[in-house]
Amino acid sequence: MKLAAFRRRTEPPGVRHVGLVMGDGPDRWIHPFEPGTEMVPLLAADAARREAAADTAAQADGIRLRDLVLLPPVYPVAMRDFLTFEAHVDGMERGHGNPGPPEAWYEAPVFLFMAPHAVTGPYDDIPMPPDTARLDFELEIAAVICRDVRNATVEQAGSAIGGYCVMNDWSARDVQSREMTLKLGPSKGKDFATTIGPWIVTPDELDGCRDADGFLDLGMTVQVNGVTVGSDRSGHMGWSFEHLVAHASRASWVKAGEVLASGTCASGSLAESWGRNGTLDPPPLRIGDVVEMSIDRLGTIRNEIVVPAEDAAPPVPPARRRVRQET
Amino acid sequence: MKLAAFRRRTEPPGVRHVGLVMGDGPDRWIHPFEPGTEMVPLLAADAARREAAADTAAQADGIRLRDLVLLPPVYPVAMRDFLTFEAHVDGMERGHGNPGPPEAWYEAPVFLFMAPHAVTGPYDDIPMPPDTARLDFELEIAAVICRDVRNATVEQAGSAIGGYCVMNDWSARDVQSREMTLKLGPSKGKDFATTIGPWIVTPDELDGCRDADGFLDLGMTVQVNGVTVGSDRSGHMGWSFEHLVAHASRASWVKAGEVLASGTCASGSLAESWGRNGTLDPPPLRIGDVVEMSIDRLGTIRNEIVVPAEDAAPPVPPARRRVRQET
Repeated sequence: MKLAAFRRRTEPPGVRHVGLVMGDGPDRWIHPFEPGTEMVPLLAADAARREAAADTAAQADGIRLRDLVLLPPVYPVAMRDFLTFEAHVDGMERGHGNPGPPEAWYEAPVFLFMAPHAVTGPYDDIPMPPDTARLDFELEIAAVICRDVRNATVEQAGSAIGGYCVMNDWSARDVQSREMTLKLGPSKGKDFATTIGPWIVTPDELDGCRDADGFLDLGMTVQVNGVTVGSDRSGHMGWSFEHLVAHASRASWVKAGEVLASGTCASGSLAESWGRNGTLDPPPLRIGDVVEMSIDRLGTIRNEIVVPAEDAAPPVPPARRRVRQET
Repeated sequence: MKLAAFRRRTEPPGVRHVGLVMGDGPDRWIHPFEPGTEMVPLLAADAARREAAADTAAQADGIRLRDLVLLPPVYPVAMRDFLTFEAHVDGMERGHGNPGPPEAWYEAPVFLFMAPHAVTGPYDDIPMPPDTARLDFELEIAAVICRDVRNATVEQAGSAIGGYCVMNDWSARDVQSREMTLKLGPSKGKDFATTIGPWIVTPDELDGCRDADGFLDLGMTVQVNGVTVGSDRSGHMGWSFEHLVAHASRASWVKAGEVLASGTCASGSLAESWGRNGTLDPPPLRIGDVVEMSIDRLGTIRNEIVVPAEDAAPPVPPARRRVRQET
């Protein structure tokens, strides 16, 4: 089942409906669920109840994609971004002059918490963030959590995953590099936009797309201005999403409405090429560039970089240096 | 005004009230606000309306501290932890063999997003997390955001701060060190517990505690088992909280219900001593240890490390190594 959040073009910003995605390509329609239907509880409902609600929705009139605005399918209560693609870590480490992934990478799936309030809709314009000359994208696959878990086994973790979507973790590489010299974060290098969508695909639709170890194995590609610049498969992750949820839940809560992302796949960012090539080739994103990401079965997100509609706040002054006093 | 979240000892977990803190020391009482009062809207209300609600609460019966359980004053919609104390950064960097804070530290206040679902009440027990032999604390001061801001000036940022509290950012240093070799996060090193409280103190109560530059200047101390092991002043932050909010809001949302923390003050963690001394002296926290943190005007939080009541989930396996294939 494919579940989208949307508003009709005739409705003001702030309105939000949940709908069933039917059909394909230009013949795609969104059929609204009953008013008041919320995405995360719908994902958590048992399959029979969700199917019944979908049957009702399917029988009512649908809305053409061109007559609506797709919204972020969830507003996450928290976001975690992992680092699960070995070849991406390898490429980035070689760019820094290291021989490959450090041993710590293999031991357990590391992640960072991300800005949860920066999610954008799948086709939203992305305002060029301030302070960067190295805007980049990151092609990722993301899981949406539909029930709270803590100390979950891998099996319990699987039942907490309500569905999957495409994710673009937009990144300002120059800002990020400065921040990472402090060995934490990054923060402002990634907090301006994270695109998720175009909708959520429930796990039952992907049953035929798992490898022998049960890892989801879907083709992933990214294009800039219509030219393919990266591609990989989700089966190249070092851990399955069930592993990621179980790990995150170890002595900690993973809550309904969270989004957990795979991290960048191999060749899923410009920075990896920059590291490998030693030059800014392909060039950083510029205003007017269109980035399009597709994952098999999950769909396509597409965003244009645009001039910001608002001025950034003035930068804060540098740290107040002080003569250290004993207290 | 001091505002606490609590339940009566006779009430089951899950019940939550907001109350006005009155009196001092053993003669402290909590006076409940009207049922349904929520903390963040109360912080955002204009002063006259908040005062009127407090007058009503003060006239009704209070509850003695011993008859209630103090809860986390907010369940944050996001948490950010900064790194604003120059002397702490200096100590940590010297522990790693570096000459002092990198220049990037002075340029802008770096932060990371933290686990938002790990907050504990001010006197809650802290279960010893798995996988660590180096449990540590971090003495911090935190601001609670009461209204959404984006691209805020320093002045607008100030009006978004609803109040302040004490924070202990519990840290498993060995887990954190392994994670930080991947240059992001940390994640599991800090996601098991973050203590905030004992209540929120509104900015008007702290008007007399600002230095010439407008920085809050409050004494901070931490004790382990009754022995003072660290102390500093919040005036030693490199930026004011108004600066931190303005910076975080640059081309990004900072939302009502967020918590933004100062980062560890100088001598506010054991790790700083470990770095300076080259040995684990004082020793890492053990079961039965009690950590007590106090900040002038804000109050005291106090937590005991205890045996976990539940088993941790089994660790996930190491990464699946793969023969890399071109796709």
